[in-house]
Amino acid sequence: MRVYVINTGTELLLGNVVNTHLTFIARELFPLGLRIERQLTVPDGSAIQESLAEVFENADLIFVTGGLGPTTDDITREAAAELLGLRLRPDREVAESIRLRLRTRGFPMTDRILRQADVPEGAVVLPNANGTAPGLYLKKDGGGVMHHLFLLPGPPRELEPMFRRCVLPILHQINKGKSALACRTFRIACVGESVVEAAVGMKLLALPEVELGYCARPGEVDVRVLGPSPALEEAERIIRGAFPKQLYTTGDEDLEDVIVRLLRDQKKTVAIAESCTGGYLAHRLTNVPGASAAFRAGYITYANETKAAALGVEPSEIQEHGAVSRLVATRMAEGARREAKADYALATTGIAGPGGGSAEKPLGTVYIALASADAETTVQRSRFQTDRKSFKQLATETALELLRERLLATTRAAA
Amino acid sequence: MRVYVINTGTELLLGNVVNTHLTFIARELFPLGLRIERQLTVPDGSAIQESLAEVFENADLIFVTGGLGPTTDDITREAAAELLGLRLRPDREVAESIRLRLRTRGFPMTDRILRQADVPEGAVVLPNANGTAPGLYLKKDGGGVMHHLFLLPGPPRELEPMFRRCVLPILHQINKGKSALACRTFRIACVGESVVEAAVGMKLLALPEVELGYCARPGEVDVRVLGPSPALEEAERIIRGAFPKQLYTTGDEDLEDVIVRLLRDQKKTVAIAESCTGGYLAHRLTNVPGASAAFRAGYITYANETKAAALGVEPSEIQEHGAVSRLVATRMAEGARREAKADYALATTGIAGPGGGSAEKPLGTVYIALASADAETTVQRSRFQTDRKSFKQLATETALELLRERLLATTRAAA
Repeated sequence: MRVYVINTGTELLLGNVVNTHLTFIARELFPLGLRIERQLTVPDGSAIQESLAEVFENADLIFVTGGLGPTTDDITREAAAELLGLRLRPDREVAESIRLRLRTRGFPMTDRILRQADVPEGAVVLPNANGTAPGLYLKKDGGGVMHHLFLLPGPPRELEPMFRRCVLPILHQINKGKSALACRTFRIACVGESVVEAAVGMKLLALPEVELGYCARPGEVDVRVLGPSPALEEAERIIRGAFPKQLYTTGDEDLEDVIVRLLRDQKKTVAIAESCTGGYLAHRLTNVPGASAAFRAGYITYANETKAAALGVEPSEIQEHGAVSRLVATRMAEGARREAKADYALATTGIAGPGGGSAEKPLGTVYIALASADAETTVQRSRFQTDRKSFKQLATETALELLRERLLATTRAAA
Repeated sequence: MRVYVINTGTELLLGNVVNTHLTFIARELFPLGLRIERQLTVPDGSAIQESLAEVFENADLIFVTGGLGPTTDDITREAAAELLGLRLRPDREVAESIRLRLRTRGFPMTDRILRQADVPEGAVVLPNANGTAPGLYLKKDGGGVMHHLFLLPGPPRELEPMFRRCVLPILHQINKGKSALACRTFRIACVGESVVEAAVGMKLLALPEVELGYCARPGEVDVRVLGPSPALEEAERIIRGAFPKQLYTTGDEDLEDVIVRLLRDQKKTVAIAESCTGGYLAHRLTNVPGASAAFRAGYITYANETKAAALGVEPSEIQEHGAVSRLVATRMAEGARREAKADYALATTGIAGPGGGSAEKPLGTVYIALASADAETTVQRSRFQTDRKSFKQLATETALELLRERLLATTRAAA
């Protein structure tokens, strides 16, 4: 299947908005074995019609995003109808749902808004749970070759749920009869992409009918494997064999999700003491819905005096060892655990930059400590030579991974 | 000038990487009065040549990203040379700089890597400060119309500095003789995009030769105005007139940058007490280089007992008023200020969701308090009905804006 994506919107070409639709659609299509052959971005207005006409004959599956709204340069609906020789008709059901949506929000109805209820003859309406403009699905037999056309709204918060709820079932239908492939994402923490690829890449590609996709973020790599179910089982054995500890999920979870889940399962709590990561570690954990059952408190002790006041770190120890030191990291973690009455505590102290650092403790050095009731406090020294924000990302990733491995060891010991 | 961007890279079409080049290039071109007419993404390999051949005749300015690396499907250089009928020749200077780069990193040189030193005859080499593959600039006279072609490396950390250092000067040269336009970005906090557009959009567009770009994030809007200098002055008067308080910068600063700058200028410090924003407020402030001169400490008191232990909030007050209340927000801010010995303190307490809320304090309710030495503590109640992460974004934006307006008032009073 030749798949094309056309993203419409002058704001994309002005640089006002980053195009996240391509990534989103590509990832949703991957498990179906569908690959995007080409993507283009065109401005609002007549270019929509031109580009659609250009690609239509060459594509089996076309996704157009944007241009379904109420303003005069939103002409995707009209362009598609004209290209396919279909008349637009007001759809009563769509009009009714737009009216309802506006009424509950107290907005007045206008003719312009009502344009969004115009539907080309024969189109399937894809309801929009988060906006007024519905999506549309059209198909045309091009002499034995069926062309499928999906018109989708521009805002990601409208497009994404619509894609999952309405588009995927249709794609499964279109794709029926193709060999059933499955997709699994393996998420690996604290290992570089090239290391992951070198360790498992060739072995995975040697599996029958397997396709691979990598996605790297600072401190993390996702390996997405598409293939028949037995091959996926084998892929999991290969990846788990190479990264028995660092493979943290095969599901759709972030590292912080896994940690909150493990803590809640074990009915344990955590506290955080941060210096160089400045609240980012707490931020990540509290991003997880339900975190309040596991997260007790965070202490961002940037100024040295507050390390003493909030966490009971002795000023003389800071004086002697330096704020960025194994001992201060230990004291911070233990202090946070004690103050917050938590089962576990993580602490970070380091030099995020751009300034600071010495020969002994160069820029990017960080000490990460983990304190708990049942074991001695452990401290890990790392160095991340990068910009300030990536430093925070890498340091928090390392801290979370330290805690996750401890929580897993506890689970295993209990089993 | 008709401007085209071709982004090459199978990883973009697999959804492994978000395309940030389009946004970057569009924003860099905006001040030159150049607009991108169309962008396409194609996979590595032969599609590069096809797409280049397709667009070449229709474009005055083409940017191709990616495909300059050492692997076999990196063929942008060859495709461009063939299209323009140019021979590739090894460039001694480029080869030398690649050798030097590898040597200092301890990597061995290979034939594959050395391919990157092949340069089409007559091309201008654009040095790569952050990688091995240089960029290339080629031009061809197409019967009175000059076609300009820039080949740029795929990784953003290589492309972006190269663009600013090497490409922009060439573009200024190409663009010479055009009327000199300037560009200014006006950043406005805590106002919606539609409100901004309604208040100033028509007035700005009525200015001579002015073009507008909007960029909205939760709680913020950027208005980018391009035009002759006198029109920009007038634009600033219009925007400042409509949003005298909320216009927080006309430079390239985030709200948190402005606050750290104001605090440092006034030699003042801040502390943070967070409940519902869970560390995000501290994270934003500590993202600013040099924040340690102004940021004292943060207390993320998620569990109610820690509000008492760390900040001295009376348990009976929490009992009586609820943790999400005007009084508890006040006590948290005052406690943080006292504990951290800071000049100012911000506190947040609210219901981020997805669970929680009541008739009196529905989901999304948040109290934000600002304590200081010289004034009574002020508390603002807001409601943000959105997802958990956007809630944190909006609540921290409101808190930062509260502090910024106070700091400005202090500056004005002192002046």
